[in-house]
Amino acid sequence: MAKVGVILSGCGVYDGSEIHETVITLLALDRAGAEIVMMAPDIEQGVVNHLTGEQEEGATRNVLVESARIARGNVSNIADISAAELDALMIPGGFGVAKNLCDFAFKGPDCSVNPEVARLVREIVAAKKPLAAVCIAPALVAKVLGADNLDPKLTIGTDEGTAGAVASMGATHISCPVEEFVIDAENKIITSPAYMLAGRISEAAEGIEKTVQALMEMLA
Amino acid sequence: MAKVGVILSGCGVYDGSEIHETVITLLALDRAGAEIVMMAPDIEQGVVNHLTGEQEEGATRNVLVESARIARGNVSNIADISAAELDALMIPGGFGVAKNLCDFAFKGPDCSVNPEVARLVREIVAAKKPLAAVCIAPALVAKVLGADNLDPKLTIGTDEGTAGAVASMGATHISCPVEEFVIDAENKIITSPAYMLAGRISEAAEGIEKTVQALMEMLA
Repeated sequence: MAKVGVILSGCGVYDGSEIHETVITLLALDRAGAEIVMMAPDIEQGVVNHLTGEQEEGATRNVLVESARIARGNVSNIADISAAELDALMIPGGFGVAKNLCDFAFKGPDCSVNPEVARLVREIVAAKKPLAAVCIAPALVAKVLGADNLDPKLTIGTDEGTAGAVASMGATHISCPVEEFVIDAENKIITSPAYMLAGRISEAAEGIEKTVQALMEMLA
Repeated sequence: MAKVGVILSGCGVYDGSEIHETVITLLALDRAGAEIVMMAPDIEQGVVNHLTGEQEEGATRNVLVESARIARGNVSNIADISAAELDALMIPGGFGVAKNLCDFAFKGPDCSVNPEVARLVREIVAAKKPLAAVCIAPALVAKVLGADNLDPKLTIGTDEGTAGAVASMGATHISCPVEEFVIDAENKIITSPAYMLAGRISEAAEGIEKTVQALMEMLA
């Protein structure tokens, strides 16, 4: 049974993991027969009121604790996970990726990545194990692997500003429609736009389900 | 296009809507071509740390605001929704149903139901529009319709204690495996056990997807 790590970044599109993308990922992996290992960093995060869209000034929550909501409690501190125990790694999107796992939402191409997240991404790619990332998560992958001069080929959809930022971090951006995905065969990276482009949940699901299928095929 | 209301109760299995069940419901409804109307009561709730499973003493969050995390902001106050604008209604599970929409988790059969939730459930059933409920949500339906002597036929799976409580509220409980559902044709109610029995997300999904399919067939 393939063991696939899933990195969470909180619980909610505006300050954590995008919930639909994450659940669709978990369901597709489970249906494909994968064993799922959920993980998140044990760090503080800001809080966005998802009804108003406004930042709750001064409020903080813990990324690992909030991620446990999506994981039904079954989530590990990413610091305790190494690539040696995984066959593949997947990162759903949501602003939590760009605010908590790295600070791309605030600093763009000059962002820095959480050290444990960067470590695990590097370990997986160095071990030639597949890595999938959807929505905004490819920007984090671009930052980590671009700095290592691995020239990852990936997509965040069609948004020109974000695509330009991804390219300036050392990645090659490939435009991609919401129901499709992009494969970097050399680095074993699969990416799909999901809610970077999706107008409804079934659109996000189509690209994510194809991404998981491609990931499992790489492992077969 | 059928308009299906979905009642949320927060965001997280131990103090809100069960996230997997809710997203699977939304995806199945969207794929079936339904228009989805998400709603939740504008009330305070307790907070459970989902990593430890412990209650956070004194902490509160707002059910409507937390529900907005699953809804990506697209959620209405249930007080503003009437059955006249819906073709059907669906209630995913999670302890939020038994703690926030009613207090069945604390008081069992002697529970009381949030007045707006009870009103909408009554309006839907009186209008002969389909009502689906999964996981523990049938307990709420039992309380509301049992009090009206409608003798709803429904399932919460196979747990004898909960089944007995449901029966004592005036419903007829029918045992049901996780991948199936129960139909009360007279009252147009569809129920499925989901995480009352599911050991993995794909098990919950099978029953919920069949429930949504049955709901859409009732509407056709």
